[in-house]
Amino acid sequence: MSYSFLPDARYRMPTHFGPSLGPRQGPEGRRYDCRNTPHQVIVRAEFEAPAARLEPFMPPGFSVRRGEIHFTFSYMTEIAWLAGRGYDTFGVSVPARYAGSTDRIDGDLLLVLWENMADPITSGREELGFSKLFCDLPPLRRHEGEIMCEASWDGFRFATLRLAGLGGTPDAAAQASQGLLHYKYIPRTGAPGEADAAYVVLTPAEGGHLRVESQIAARDAFCIFHRATWEELPTLVHIVDALADVPLGRCIRASVTETRGAKDLSDQRILS
Amino acid sequence: MSYSFLPDARYRMPTHFGPSLGPRQGPEGRRYDCRNTPHQVIVRAEFEAPAARLEPFMPPGFSVRRGEIHFTFSYMTEIAWLAGRGYDTFGVSVPARYAGSTDRIDGDLLLVLWENMADPITSGREELGFSKLFCDLPPLRRHEGEIMCEASWDGFRFATLRLAGLGGTPDAAAQASQGLLHYKYIPRTGAPGEADAAYVVLTPAEGGHLRVESQIAARDAFCIFHRATWEELPTLVHIVDALADVPLGRCIRASVTETRGAKDLSDQRILS
Amino acid sequence: MSYSFLPDARYRMPTHFGPSLGPRQGPEGRRYDCRNTPHQVIVRAEFEAPAARLEPFMPPGFSVRRGEIHFTFSYMTEIAWLAGRGYDTFGVSVPARYAGSTDRIDGDLLLVLWENMADPITSGREELGFSKLFCDLPPLRRHEGEIMCEASWDGFRFATLRLAGLGGTPDAAAQASQGLLHYKYIPRTGAPGEADAAYVVLTPAEGGHLRVESQIAARDAFCIFHRATWEELPTLVHIVDALADVPLGRCIRASVTETRGAKDLSDQRILS
Amino acid sequence: MSYSFLPDARYRMPTHFGPSLGPRQGPEGRRYDCRNTPHQVIVRAEFEAPAARLEPFMPPGFSVRRGEIHFTFSYMTEIAWLAGRGYDTFGVSVPARYAGSTDRIDGDLLLVLWENMADPITSGREELGFSKLFCDLPPLRRHEGEIMCEASWDGFRFATLRLAGLGGTPDAAAQASQGLLHYKYIPRTGAPGEADAAYVVLTPAEGGHLRVESQIAARDAFCIFHRATWEELPTLVHIVDALADVPLGRCIRASVTETRGAKDLSDQRILS
Repeated sequence: MSYSFLPDARYRMPTHFGPSLGPRQGPEGRRYDCRNTPHQVIVRAEFEAPAARLEPFMPPGFSVRRGEIHFTFSYMTEIAWLAGRGYDTFGVSVPARYAGSTDRIDGDLLLVLWENMADPITSGREELGFSKLFCDLPPLRRHEGEIMCEASWDGFRFATLRLAGLGGTPDAAAQASQGLLHYKYIPRTGAPGEADAAYVVLTPAEGGHLRVESQIAARDAFCIFHRATWEELPTLVHIVDALADVPLGRCIRASVTETRGAKDLSDQRILS
Repeated sequence: MSYSFLPDARYRMPTHFGPSLGPRQGPEGRRYDCRNTPHQVIVRAEFEAPAARLEPFMPPGFSVRRGEIHFTFSYMTEIAWLAGRGYDTFGVSVPARYAGSTDRIDGDLLLVLWENMADPITSGREELGFSKLFCDLPPLRRHEGEIMCEASWDGFRFATLRLAGLGGTPDAAAQASQGLLHYKYIPRTGAPGEADAAYVVLTPAEGGHLRVESQIAARDAFCIFHRATWEELPTLVHIVDALADVPLGRCIRASVTETRGAKDLSDQRILS
Repeated sequence: MSYSFLPDARYRMPTHFGPSLGPRQGPEGRRYDCRNTPHQVIVRAEFEAPAARLEPFMPPGFSVRRGEIHFTFSYMTEIAWLAGRGYDTFGVSVPARYAGSTDRIDGDLLLVLWENMADPITSGREELGFSKLFCDLPPLRRHEGEIMCEASWDGFRFATLRLAGLGGTPDAAAQASQGLLHYKYIPRTGAPGEADAAYVVLTPAEGGHLRVESQIAARDAFCIFHRATWEELPTLVHIVDALADVPLGRCIRASVTETRGAKDLSDQRILS
Repeated sequence: MSYSFLPDARYRMPTHFGPSLGPRQGPEGRRYDCRNTPHQVIVRAEFEAPAARLEPFMPPGFSVRRGEIHFTFSYMTEIAWLAGRGYDTFGVSVPARYAGSTDRIDGDLLLVLWENMADPITSGREELGFSKLFCDLPPLRRHEGEIMCEASWDGFRFATLRLAGLGGTPDAAAQASQGLLHYKYIPRTGAPGEADAAYVVLTPAEGGHLRVESQIAARDAFCIFHRATWEELPTLVHIVDALADVPLGRCIRASVTETRGAKDLSDQRILS
């Protein structure tokens, strides 16, 4: 006698062992309130960049909202759905507008989000439509008043973000964003060019329990992507080289922020 | 000006940087012939198990074909699409029949396939519908005439396979299988219980360039799954405990096989 | 023309490339003042244990001072001699007295100090005489008001320390100790049973810049060593099993402490 | 009652738990015969280099024998004293003569031996006097007829060796060597510039059970050391930069060799 799917439960492959465990569903369907955890150290820098060089990254229905590119490293600990473990992320986004048949959103398009743990990559891609990929993210380095964040894959360091001149409070926040925008795409098996899913998704800005515990500005920031060969980065070279080709202008804003609390992203919704 | 999707090209998230790189598509759309690579050391053991204990793992349309469960560790090197790197896998399968509205296949249902590298997990889940998950797979250990394969997650060793009494040639192959069967399931974002994809997929047995370079039988094999707490395996506990609950009978057949060649699995097809 | 050794410089193998780099000697002989770094999160628990079970761990000239055994995990970041990187340690010590021909010290004998980085293991063993060994130390886990520290080797988790009931300030410090005691032993090459060095060393308690930034007591603590087979821990089994055999009494004191500052341990001295 | 040292037993720190476990001493003092294990894949390339640039690496009593520098990567599996586990090494050596008061040996001076496992680094340094240091050594890559070996530390790739044009049998062996030469140096605690041990050691060429199972020559080889900053390689920069400064001439000989068997190096002896 084969199994049936429980209604309204969250499943991911393999479905053969019942509903999945993950950020939005724990044992016995338990939810995580994210009221006081995770703890995050967020290192972020925003740079000017020519809008014309960012337009080619916009999926159908999207346009560049401001000529800027944002780099964000987050070092997370005390994650409840991982029983207190942590993992780290490195995201690249661009202020963008989505104008669909119904929705019109001024948000930020997530170009790519690297993470150093496979489990949240799978749940984030499939349940949420986040463009998550794997890389190694060593712990943040602090040395002689500077902060250094690094990303590598199989020993090839493809990106570094350095913050210098730490001190003082950051300027008032950047212009408001309605949330993080994604283009969810799942290929159809055995049919190159066809998709099981191809739609736009929004992570609304509001909601959740994120609270800032401390924040410090950086006077300057430096972000470098290192061009690679296919041999060095056989799964990432086209992404890393494309980002290396974006000329960065001045650093608009850079900071290190410690936060607690979050949301489980179950409010993720499809736009049309 | 936003980008358009190239027709017939393979894409995975992020789609913003053009067609993806992976096992079935290299730079400039290059394919990999898999004629002489990868190299694999395959450690495999098949056990009797009560069909009634395996039926609950069968998705809709499936039934147990024989009361058996198979464990396969593969240690791969010289993988062309990874520019000569390698990775390892640990799969669990059950001889099963799929009877759909059109197709009727006597194959093996892949219950789960653990891999120790994130990149092929993503492409395999999304392009192929393989039930791939991450775990650590240390190198195979050979010591005093025995072979030991192990799987762990964050330092918790959840499965071991030990082969003893190595020597001689394996018996004639097991009964024929038409291929590996999968249930591809991708959840729909923001809609628990709904799916972007939920269909059966076949990896046909035929085709490809796999050739055996050497094979040696084992007189006996021992496979143990270690029950875990949610704290120890917060994403895998329901799978590992379910497999630990399957009573294993005698070992039908166990062997270590060295092979070269494979196929790129672009012949994966949807059943109905 | 061969090289000569610079007088008063610190060397370790290989000596062929000039003076070594390490905690007590940077580029151009630079020293590290350790005034504000490293940052440490120190998780410590002290237990009663029968003195008779601890005596067999005492080297010649040593005796147990109190029937206690102490477990200390330290998670270090911002280490100056590593250019801002970090590493972690897990130490086991016993209050002990050394009575030599000249010196008489009431301190704590370091039974073993596991570290998860090879470089400080080498410099610590050879320059200082610390009984350092390698193991994996995953990041500290905090979950539902508890703290979990773990140590493993090649996927075998051999020790865990759990602190529960966190809150309040720790009791006044334990009885004073004059420092950490070590037995430095370096075997003579090609002569089993003979030694290049076999002497007692003291890390004096005083000196340095360690300052407590926060401290919180735990109501209770639980430390478990897991007995292993030689196959599981081929280099550590005799140590882990011996520690697993020590019956732990009540937890005397347990705490989590955040500190900044340290010393470079160049005041390490040989006792006689 | 403190412990005593057992006569003729091998000890390393910590000595508090009895004789050590390692390559030359197993449980109950067991020895490993190394008759059929470990298995090694050895990738080796020898280059011409100006003797004048190698002389500064010679310790007192040594001189360059031939203007050559040799790079050897070894990928080891089935190591008996590790219960069948493996680890990898990357060594750099120079043909050298040691002329002491008694001994005169034409051998090869081991400038440095990197290994990717901490346990054999400790036993090899202290028991044998090998100049072992830690680095990451990913698995050997084979791709499109070439072989690539790499060494990195914390994500900084500091050396690569590439063999091209594989095929045919290597030329007759290089000129004979009486063994591998080492300068063992252990600093005295608390006394910069003083040593507990500073003597020359020989690994005799003869003895042991190493047998070649297959060997293939390479038409050419390329070895590159990448200069680093202190921030990138805070413990290795002086070594890597010095090796990067050695101008390499033509490749004299390069090969890939598979072997079985070894010796436990208990015949290591002090020269004078």
